[in-house]
Amino acid sequence: MKAFAAGGDRRLLLFTGRAHPALADSIARELGTGLVPTQARDFANGEIYVRFEESVRGADCFVVQSHTAPINTWVMEQLIMIDALKRASARSITVVVPFYGYSRQDKKHKGREPISARLLADLIATAGADRIITVDLHTDQIAGFFDGPLDHLFALPTLADHIAAHTDHERLTVVSPDAGRVRVADRWCDRLGAPLAIVHKKRDKDVAHRVSAHEVVGDVAGRVCVLVDDMVDTAGTICAAADALYDNGAADVIVAATHGILSGPAVERLEESKVSRFVFTDTLPTAAATGLDKVEVLSIAPLVAHAIREIFENGSVTNLLEEM
Amino acid sequence: MKAFAAGGDRRLLLFTGRAHPALADSIARELGTGLVPTQARDFANGEIYVRFEESVRGADCFVVQSHTAPINTWVMEQLIMIDALKRASARSITVVVPFYGYSRQDKKHKGREPISARLLADLIATAGADRIITVDLHTDQIAGFFDGPLDHLFALPTLADHIAAHTDHERLTVVSPDAGRVRVADRWCDRLGAPLAIVHKKRDKDVAHRVSAHEVVGDVAGRVCVLVDDMVDTAGTICAAADALYDNGAADVIVAATHGILSGPAVERLEESKVSRFVFTDTLPTAAATGLDKVEVLSIAPLVAHAIREIFENGSVTNLLEEM
Amino acid sequence: MKAFAAGGDRRLLLFTGRAHPALADSIARELGTGLVPTQARDFANGEIYVRFEESVRGADCFVVQSHTAPINTWVMEQLIMIDALKRASARSITVVVPFYGYSRQDKKHKGREPISARLLADLIATAGADRIITVDLHTDQIAGFFDGPLDHLFALPTLADHIAAHTDHERLTVVSPDAGRVRVADRWCDRLGAPLAIVHKKRDKDVAHRVSAHEVVGDVAGRVCVLVDDMVDTAGTICAAADALYDNGAADVIVAATHGILSGPAVERLEESKVSRFVFTDTLPTAAATGLDKVEVLSIAPLVAHAIREIFENGSVTNLLEEM
Amino acid sequence: MKAFAAGGDRRLLLFTGRAHPALADSIARELGTGLVPTQARDFANGEIYVRFEESVRGADCFVVQSHTAPINTWVMEQLIMIDALKRASARSITVVVPFYGYSRQDKKHKGREPISARLLADLIATAGADRIITVDLHTDQIAGFFDGPLDHLFALPTLADHIAAHTDHERLTVVSPDAGRVRVADRWCDRLGAPLAIVHKKRDKDVAHRVSAHEVVGDVAGRVCVLVDDMVDTAGTICAAADALYDNGAADVIVAATHGILSGPAVERLEESKVSRFVFTDTLPTAAATGLDKVEVLSIAPLVAHAIREIFENGSVTNLLEEM
Amino acid sequence: MKAFAAGGDRRLLLFTGRAHPALADSIARELGTGLVPTQARDFANGEIYVRFEESVRGADCFVVQSHTAPINTWVMEQLIMIDALKRASARSITVVVPFYGYSRQDKKHKGREPISARLLADLIATAGADRIITVDLHTDQIAGFFDGPLDHLFALPTLADHIAAHTDHERLTVVSPDAGRVRVADRWCDRLGAPLAIVHKKRDKDVAHRVSAHEVVGDVAGRVCVLVDDMVDTAGTICAAADALYDNGAADVIVAATHGILSGPAVERLEESKVSRFVFTDTLPTAAATGLDKVEVLSIAPLVAHAIREIFENGSVTNLLEEM
Amino acid sequence: MKAFAAGGDRRLLLFTGRAHPALADSIARELGTGLVPTQARDFANGEIYVRFEESVRGADCFVVQSHTAPINTWVMEQLIMIDALKRASARSITVVVPFYGYSRQDKKHKGREPISARLLADLIATAGADRIITVDLHTDQIAGFFDGPLDHLFALPTLADHIAAHTDHERLTVVSPDAGRVRVADRWCDRLGAPLAIVHKKRDKDVAHRVSAHEVVGDVAGRVCVLVDDMVDTAGTICAAADALYDNGAADVIVAATHGILSGPAVERLEESKVSRFVFTDTLPTAAATGLDKVEVLSIAPLVAHAIREIFENGSVTNLLEEM
Repeated sequence: MKAFAAGGDRRLLLFTGRAHPALADSIARELGTGLVPTQARDFANGEIYVRFEESVRGADCFVVQSHTAPINTWVMEQLIMIDALKRASARSITVVVPFYGYSRQDKKHKGREPISARLLADLIATAGADRIITVDLHTDQIAGFFDGPLDHLFALPTLADHIAAHTDHERLTVVSPDAGRVRVADRWCDRLGAPLAIVHKKRDKDVAHRVSAHEVVGDVAGRVCVLVDDMVDTAGTICAAADALYDNGAADVIVAATHGILSGPAVERLEESKVSRFVFTDTLPTAAATGLDKVEVLSIAPLVAHAIREIFENGSVTNLLEEM
Repeated sequence: MKAFAAGGDRRLLLFTGRAHPALADSIARELGTGLVPTQARDFANGEIYVRFEESVRGADCFVVQSHTAPINTWVMEQLIMIDALKRASARSITVVVPFYGYSRQDKKHKGREPISARLLADLIATAGADRIITVDLHTDQIAGFFDGPLDHLFALPTLADHIAAHTDHERLTVVSPDAGRVRVADRWCDRLGAPLAIVHKKRDKDVAHRVSAHEVVGDVAGRVCVLVDDMVDTAGTICAAADALYDNGAADVIVAATHGILSGPAVERLEESKVSRFVFTDTLPTAAATGLDKVEVLSIAPLVAHAIREIFENGSVTNLLEEM
Repeated sequence: MKAFAAGGDRRLLLFTGRAHPALADSIARELGTGLVPTQARDFANGEIYVRFEESVRGADCFVVQSHTAPINTWVMEQLIMIDALKRASARSITVVVPFYGYSRQDKKHKGREPISARLLADLIATAGADRIITVDLHTDQIAGFFDGPLDHLFALPTLADHIAAHTDHERLTVVSPDAGRVRVADRWCDRLGAPLAIVHKKRDKDVAHRVSAHEVVGDVAGRVCVLVDDMVDTAGTICAAADALYDNGAADVIVAATHGILSGPAVERLEESKVSRFVFTDTLPTAAATGLDKVEVLSIAPLVAHAIREIFENGSVTNLLEEM
Repeated sequence: MKAFAAGGDRRLLLFTGRAHPALADSIARELGTGLVPTQARDFANGEIYVRFEESVRGADCFVVQSHTAPINTWVMEQLIMIDALKRASARSITVVVPFYGYSRQDKKHKGREPISARLLADLIATAGADRIITVDLHTDQIAGFFDGPLDHLFALPTLADHIAAHTDHERLTVVSPDAGRVRVADRWCDRLGAPLAIVHKKRDKDVAHRVSAHEVVGDVAGRVCVLVDDMVDTAGTICAAADALYDNGAADVIVAATHGILSGPAVERLEESKVSRFVFTDTLPTAAATGLDKVEVLSIAPLVAHAIREIFENGSVTNLLEEM
Repeated sequence: MKAFAAGGDRRLLLFTGRAHPALADSIARELGTGLVPTQARDFANGEIYVRFEESVRGADCFVVQSHTAPINTWVMEQLIMIDALKRASARSITVVVPFYGYSRQDKKHKGREPISARLLADLIATAGADRIITVDLHTDQIAGFFDGPLDHLFALPTLADHIAAHTDHERLTVVSPDAGRVRVADRWCDRLGAPLAIVHKKRDKDVAHRVSAHEVVGDVAGRVCVLVDDMVDTAGTICAAADALYDNGAADVIVAATHGILSGPAVERLEESKVSRFVFTDTLPTAAATGLDKVEVLSIAPLVAHAIREIFENGSVTNLLEEM
Repeated sequence: MKAFAAGGDRRLLLFTGRAHPALADSIARELGTGLVPTQARDFANGEIYVRFEESVRGADCFVVQSHTAPINTWVMEQLIMIDALKRASARSITVVVPFYGYSRQDKKHKGREPISARLLADLIATAGADRIITVDLHTDQIAGFFDGPLDHLFALPTLADHIAAHTDHERLTVVSPDAGRVRVADRWCDRLGAPLAIVHKKRDKDVAHRVSAHEVVGDVAGRVCVLVDDMVDTAGTICAAADALYDNGAADVIVAATHGILSGPAVERLEESKVSRFVFTDTLPTAAATGLDKVEVLSIAPLVAHAIREIFENGSVTNLLEEM
């Protein structure tokens, strides 16, 4: 029988949804490639239409979409893009989600709640994705919600080294803004060689869920406090924590967080806060959009591009995952 | 061993998302029950939060949500509600979708498109739903996208009988607004005993996808034309078809459609159109919201409530599905 | 550690079941390859036995089987072949189904019916197939029944160009034989630049499902009518439609359909019909087997072979899917 | 909120395909119920159409189909019936397969063969069945091919007790017709308290797969030999084994087997064989259809009906499965 | 057709593996029922054999097994029990895992690690379980690893109320033994109205992973410290934390933890520690087995039994999940 | 768009669990490669920890683990290794199980038993394995428990040729130790050209399951009997069968079995038995560990290595599977 054979070469294709194209452009630039031309628009009733303008058959496809507002729209757009790639015979589909939506709904706080972060992982798998790349999940356990390879990148080295380079290292104290984020603050302590403090919410015994005071556990007087968190959403907690630090004699307060969601009253709060600097990455388009001088935005693109290249070339991503 | 037993009684619980609560209220009233109190709100960044305020354990749960704008938000809300019910030990979960979103994306029109209507069925199943109740799918085949029981209800009897009761039956001609909807028009002919006509788009041979003319196939001169469709979205096609009928001597044109999506320029077009009456159902909240005199809205709630009751009591839904 | 590596070259293997080996041979010839020697036979009680006589490990396997009579036997044979390939470590399995059986059972016409076309897609996936190639599905939505890549090829260009080349193009009218096929007829109109007509069944109001008359909507007097359909099974509808056209003054009637199923009384009806020519493709062996002069059979093998080559070489199939 | 509740009563519905309606009738009679009226017919091209004429919603449905010739047709019919029940909201679907087809293809005898018995279990599950009831699988391991409850009934007590009652018990020797069925023969020995013999095929060393002789291992001279097997298909092996027994001095040979497939030359071979009696059950319609005097057919209906009743009423089937 | 119906009554059956039968007995006593007699033993090569000695058909089955040492044996035993129940037609299968094994492997600490806690949830689902009941998961997110209802019970009220009742409430300080458990300590603070302190590991900058000191963040001098954790395994961390508290002037240290794993050197460490009391529950058999006076064991059986009853009777478990 | 491509070269990685590293070493040596350095250890409470010390991204991974005692520990370790490989982006995962545990639990002997061999196949698939390589399954049907490629290797040629080379071929009789293993003995007869005999257990009619005698069916007087089986566990059956052969005049008895499990009293029984030689392979570490002179151990490593190489290089394994 006459042979009919083909070489096994593979090609990488990069796609972006409409949530945060600037980041996808940066990633493409880092990779030295371009984005696959894609039609994506809304029909009059809000249904999303997507079509790729080049063949994707047999390619390793990476779909960048960060879950910024309007978040449900961008989640659905990403699912629809995955479906289209699957039906168009992509060889593999990797979802790149610099900010993974619904990550705070990673457990039931009360009965009869959803676990929406797990639901999202299942939706992504159902649509047809093979792998996820994401940055600083709200909790590490979310990686286990996906039944397949998930590369979890950490922005901590990027953020911490930037702060270390621009502040007096000896005066730093790392502060967790509440009881649930102490472990992350602990990792910062290790990297910066700095002591730890915690802002701890005292709840009012007479009124359920009412916080009566922000108590500082640990010494902050005269220190440059780096308040660290994975995300800043409405900025209420972080600004209250900063106030508590100043009240306890902090010399200065810097906020460092990977994801600057900055929704609702956040921008106003940042403006009015005594915090001297807010450092975010560009996993979301919102931090850059504030236009505030006190907000710095570091690019996550080199890290994501590095991971994509290693994945495509079957290298190790472990050093990206671990090194701090 | 001492017996430990319980009776097998079942209870029905009805829920609504925030897309179209008025319809859910009507359905509850028809059933003589109420809606389960439910918290549903958006966090600042647009993530949806849902929690049920009563135990759902062991209950047969029906979740009403119509896919109106903002459609992706309401789809996600419904998926999140299903997830919460599943994790809260509902006995069965039936999704009630009076208007099933993305139903026009039921096939690939070109390469590298998604089949979003199939994707939606898969997302619903993944979240944990056991069954779907819906009304007038864009094509009947969509029922096959779901791997389980799907009760497909038809508004045609409701709409057609209303029109038959209010018009001179002898003068009616049923008109399909384009080539793809002729089969539905055919069913109307059978029910009304009326002749058929078709508006057929002639495409410009020189410009791709440009429609050069709306040709009327069949006799409409002096007739009362009932233009029938499953949905009216921007109303462009239907109004152009109506114009073509008037141009061909139609005495009057009535539009009857199950789903009044009415997005974008639709309300303006309805207002300006020579069509004398538009008859919709309340599968979506939009038709009632137009406030136009020429728009009539018939309630779908009795039909849906009937189906829910039959499903819960293991009766037959077939007569609801077939009778026209 | 000493490296142990292998090149990534891929090889294509082509298989055929016993349903329509002549077509598989034609496809193999078009591809310039051969068919993998395969034992396939029935045990005395009708159970099918299949075994491949060459290693398939690591190969991209394409299994040709058209669902002709005895249809259930050939469906099962194809499923069994897929199972054997899966267990023998095929790298990928593509099912080539020139005529996809049960495609008319793509929806429930009444309660308590199956959706057998969806069932078939699920059976194929369960057996282990990764992809489907098929030609002219009864409705486009069936593609959405399969949760993976499905390449849907269209015979329309092949058929329409043949007819255009052999008839007086100016005199042509495209006719849909019933209300459900108008959209396909519409596509023919676009390609041939010809006007549209419809044969519309009037049902008897006094007897359920009894067709009282075939009404022609549109002008056919003096025209050369091309009655178009996806398939001709018993030929009852198509011949009745042709009669109605002649009764309405048609100069000539040509029938063009992709799938010549031609079961039961079909051959006799073709013979007796006034239709001057029937044009089919060879997706099924039946048209060629009639031996009638008025039956022409065009080969689908070049189209299918082209698709297989593009899939194997990761090219684009889109132009095959769209060009008309 | 006003309660909306229903009782938990359950109802059993019994269905039959067209393979072996006489058995289904017997089972219904044993249960004191009837069969649900069902339309089942072939379209002209062989596609099967099925519809149930009564509501099945919420019922525990049992679908009887024995895999007799044309076997693939009846397998597909059963799958289609399951699909229709699933979509019509059956509460549970139990497949009753008195003879489970493809059971001899329960392993790969050579490379690149299918394991069709596993495939069949997967197809049944995919279509939507929850449970299988079957009789005397070719090997017990096939039960493990289905990922759910499978009730495996044994005809051995029925057959053995019948033979014990009609023969001189002291003179009996149980004989396995080949090396692979010795374990079943062993169970007969235990029940009848009789010694064991084996017919063993000697293969020709010079010609692959050629059997050179049937060697009898054990003493059969002057004995009444009961040759036992799960099935008799073409009757070649069993008749050759009987000949070997007579050649070795057997006084009489009786054949007992659960499944009388009797295909191809079987009836002729039975007629011509020196075997004095063939005892089968009616798991298949074929044994009764031979009309031979030397063929006795025992009804399996009481056993199957008993199992269905126990399953429906949540009793124990274990004593049916084990008692011998 | 003659009706064939049955009532819908349900029955609860309780089973135990061999890991911790004393707890299962207590639960049965609380429920006022018994355990289903079950054979479970090891074959000579360590394979586990299980068989239930009563029919389980149609019953709601609860399988108690706590993942104590030898942990892999008990996990496999539980999976095998589930498989046997599934194949024996249980109506539902609930896995009761008072201590959920591998819960500390809920994330990848480094690249190329498993997420064994997710794997375990998948194994349980694959075997055939419908629901999980468990107590104090190491992190709440593990609940999201299971795709179905999981009732997560909290021992905090049991433990905290016991301590409140036996100590001078005004002198209590709640202490988290490391940065990762602060959120749990925070919940204790809320319940006891006590202040918070943290023991924080300082890592040696020169030696990777080496802890150089245990730093106490917050005031503990003269206080009765309650060191709280979900589990105490080798007791190294907790005893070192207690030492640090005494070094910082704590008046007394009490340790409270749900799961007393107490493996390796734990018993010796408990004995030698200056901690005055260790309070555990009996989710594992190990705490009771120490025989130490300073170890108190509170029974979790009432809580688990309550949950089982509510689940079976479709009541609400939410108050068990939330009340603290 | 600038191309971004990579070659398709593949690499093979070999891993071993802790069950039988000596065999994995032999396989690696045969392949001319090494084992990937892997951390695997038990935590104090018995939970297993695994981590690979080199990147596995994109590699074809083969995980060797034989299910020796403590069997449940090694099964779990293998599942955990698979999970880690899946999450670390292995291209494919092949499980190498020289002895497949729980293979005797391949059917229900009585009601309410598990089918643990099927469960094991499902657990392996759930963890993420794509393929299984195994040697001499207890029954061939177990291959059908896995829904994917399973390469079933046979040790018979290795064992039989060794025996043929070291005994007087003319005097050999192949003996099956009980009714269930006759088919395997039959294959030995074909390979050695030797006659067959069977040891048949007579059960006591008065005491259930009590074996009253071991009856020899066939002639063994003066013969060198080769008792063949797939495994020898406690050696009770095989030694009793040997005794029966000597009692019936056998000149010598040799035992040949693939898997020398040799648990419980086995070593003592081997020592005391009159059997002159026991020949096993090294699928398990136990035979070599006996240190008995009469025990010979043949290496299975060449066979397994050959299969791995063929799989990796997409060659045919069929000749390994069939040739005897």
